[in-house]
Amino acid sequence: MPLNQQILLENRPKGEAIASNFKLVETETSVLQDGQVLVRHHFLSLDPYMRMRMSDSKSYTAPQALGQVMIGGTAGEVVESRSPRFKAGDKVVGMGGWQQFSVVNAEPAGALRKVDTTHVPLSHYLGAVGMPGVTAYYGLVKIIEPKAGQTMVVSAATGAVGSAFAALSKARGCRTVGIAGGVEKCNYAVSELGFDACIDYKLHKDAASLSAALKAVCPQGIDGYFENVGGMVLDAVLPLMNDFGRIALCGMIAGYDGRPMPMSYPALILTSRLKVEGFIVSEHMEVWPDALKELGTLVANGKLRPRETIADGIAAAPEAFLGLLKGKNFGKQLVKLI
Amino acid sequence: MPLNQQILLENRPKGEAIASNFKLVETETSVLQDGQVLVRHHFLSLDPYMRMRMSDSKSYTAPQALGQVMIGGTAGEVVESRSPRFKAGDKVVGMGGWQQFSVVNAEPAGALRKVDTTHVPLSHYLGAVGMPGVTAYYGLVKIIEPKAGQTMVVSAATGAVGSAFAALSKARGCRTVGIAGGVEKCNYAVSELGFDACIDYKLHKDAASLSAALKAVCPQGIDGYFENVGGMVLDAVLPLMNDFGRIALCGMIAGYDGRPMPMSYPALILTSRLKVEGFIVSEHMEVWPDALKELGTLVANGKLRPRETIADGIAAAPEAFLGLLKGKNFGKQLVKLI
Repeated sequence: MPLNQQILLENRPKGEAIASNFKLVETETSVLQDGQVLVRHHFLSLDPYMRMRMSDSKSYTAPQALGQVMIGGTAGEVVESRSPRFKAGDKVVGMGGWQQFSVVNAEPAGALRKVDTTHVPLSHYLGAVGMPGVTAYYGLVKIIEPKAGQTMVVSAATGAVGSAFAALSKARGCRTVGIAGGVEKCNYAVSELGFDACIDYKLHKDAASLSAALKAVCPQGIDGYFENVGGMVLDAVLPLMNDFGRIALCGMIAGYDGRPMPMSYPALILTSRLKVEGFIVSEHMEVWPDALKELGTLVANGKLRPRETIADGIAAAPEAFLGLLKGKNFGKQLVKLI
Repeated sequence: MPLNQQILLENRPKGEAIASNFKLVETETSVLQDGQVLVRHHFLSLDPYMRMRMSDSKSYTAPQALGQVMIGGTAGEVVESRSPRFKAGDKVVGMGGWQQFSVVNAEPAGALRKVDTTHVPLSHYLGAVGMPGVTAYYGLVKIIEPKAGQTMVVSAATGAVGSAFAALSKARGCRTVGIAGGVEKCNYAVSELGFDACIDYKLHKDAASLSAALKAVCPQGIDGYFENVGGMVLDAVLPLMNDFGRIALCGMIAGYDGRPMPMSYPALILTSRLKVEGFIVSEHMEVWPDALKELGTLVANGKLRPRETIADGIAAAPEAFLGLLKGKNFGKQLVKLI
C-alpha cells in the first residue's frame, strides 16, 4: 500500500494557533476491507471552522482528537475500490483530512460523493460548489430570506463563502455589498465577483468609522447580513440594520483564538427587531441538493468565478491554514497534493 | 366638559430618567365630535417600553413628543359616546395616556377595546390579559416554540410579562425557571406564580456567579429564554443555552439610560446555533385574539394570579414609573385614577 503523509494535531493552541500545534508523519495506508475505497487526494480544503476544532472549549462539535489526522474536506480520485458504489478513476469529494490518501468506508450515504468535472473543476467542489457555497446558500436563503431590491452585506467578501454569497444574492435581485481587507480584494470583489460595492475594513480603526463608510454604500440600510468575522465588523453593521433585518452568524474568526469579543450594542437587536441566528451547514443536509444545483449552474454559466489560493504539498498545510486565519488568502484556500 | 389632569413629557432624560422630565398640567377635555367617545380612566399602565420613548435615539418607534401627554395603556369606562360602537358604562381598554380622561376616535378598529369584567378584573386587562400577557405569549409561542419537557427561563420573573410567561410555559409542560431581584420576589415566584425555581440575581456580583446558580436549577440546560433585562443576566444565561436554543429579546431595561451594555460572548450564538430575536408585540396583532383567549382562561381558572403594585392618583405616576425602572414594583405596576 502507498506511503501516506499526514498532518496530526500535536497539541492545542494556547491563544493564537501556531505551526508547532501540528506534526507531519508518514504511515502506510491500510489494506482495503470489503466496502472500502482508497482515495488519493488532489486537493485539501482549509476552512476557518478547523480553528474551533483545535480547541477543547465548548463548540458545536467534539474537539479534534490529539494525535489524530486533522479533519478536513478533500477532493480526489478513487485509486482502488472494494465497494460496488465506486470504481477506480471516479472523482470524489469527502472528509479525508489533512493527508495524501484516505481509506473510506463507502457505504454510509454522504461519506463520499462522486462529482462531475465536465463543467466544474474538481477543486471548486471544495469551495463554491461545496461546503462553503452551501454555507452561503443556507445563510442567505434559509435565514436571511432576501427579497429583490433589498440590501445584503457579507464580510470576508472575497472568501469562498463570500464570493458564493455574492452570486446567489445578485441572482435574487439584491444590492450586494462586501467587506474585505485591502484595496486589491475590494477591487476584485467589484470587478470579478459582482459586488455592487466593497468596503476595506483595514482603512478603519474603529467600528464607527467602518459603519460610516458602509452607510455611504448602503443608502437604504441593510436588510440581510452574513457574518463571517465578528468583532468590530459586526459592531459596525448592527446600527445600519433595517427593522426586521436578519443576520446569519456563520463565522467569528476574530474570536477563535480565545480573546473575548463582545457585541457592543446588543440592544439594537431589540430596537430594530432583528433576528440573529447561528448555524453550521452540515446540520442542514436537506438543503445541499438544491444549493449544489444552483451553485453548479452559476459556476458553469460563468456567473460565479471563485478565486483560489493554492498551497503546494501537504507539508505546506499548517502555514497556509495559519495564513487563512489572518486573512492572507485570496479566495478559497486549498492545498494541492498532486 | 370635565377637568383633566395630565402628565406631559417636559424634557428628555440625560442618562437616568428623573421626576423633572415630567410635568403635571390640568386642561378641560374637548367637546365630543361624531364618532368620538369620552373615556374616564380607572387605571393607567406603566411599562418599561416608555423609557425608550422618552429618548430620541434610534428605537422602534418615533420618540414621545415633548410637551405632549405621555403615551400609555389605560383601562376605564365610557362616560359619553357619540359612536354607535360604544355606550356609556362600557368597560374599555385603550392607549389613553397618562391622564384622567381621554377623547378617542372610536372608529379605527383596535383604538378602543370593550372588555368583560365578569371573571377578569378590569386592571388585569392592562397586565396578564393585556399587552404584557400577549408579549409573553408571542415570545414563548412564536419565537421560542417550546416543547414539553424543555427548560424555559425568564428574567424579571415576577413582573407582568414574567408571571404570564410562567403560566403559559407551565401549561405547555416545560420546566420553568425565573430570575428576579430579592428573596421575597423569588419565594413568591415559586409559591404563587408556579415557577419551578427562581434565582435571586441580587445575590450575585457577576455573570459567572449568576450562571453557576442558574445551572444548578437547570440541570438539562436552557432551551428557551425570554429576556426582559439584558446585561449581566443575559451574559449569565447565554453559556447555559442548549444547542438550537431560542432567545426572545423583549426588554433591555439595564441599558435604557444610555449606558453601553455589551453582550460579552456573542460567539456563543454561533457555537450553540442559537436564534436571538427582538420583537415588539404591537407589530404582531394577529396573535392577540388567541393569546387573550388563553390568558383570560388562565386567569379565570386561577392558574395565573398576577400580582399588582398600585400607585394612587395621576400625580404619583412619575415616581411609580421611575421605581419600575429600578425594579421596585412587585408584579404589574399600575396607577389607580379613581
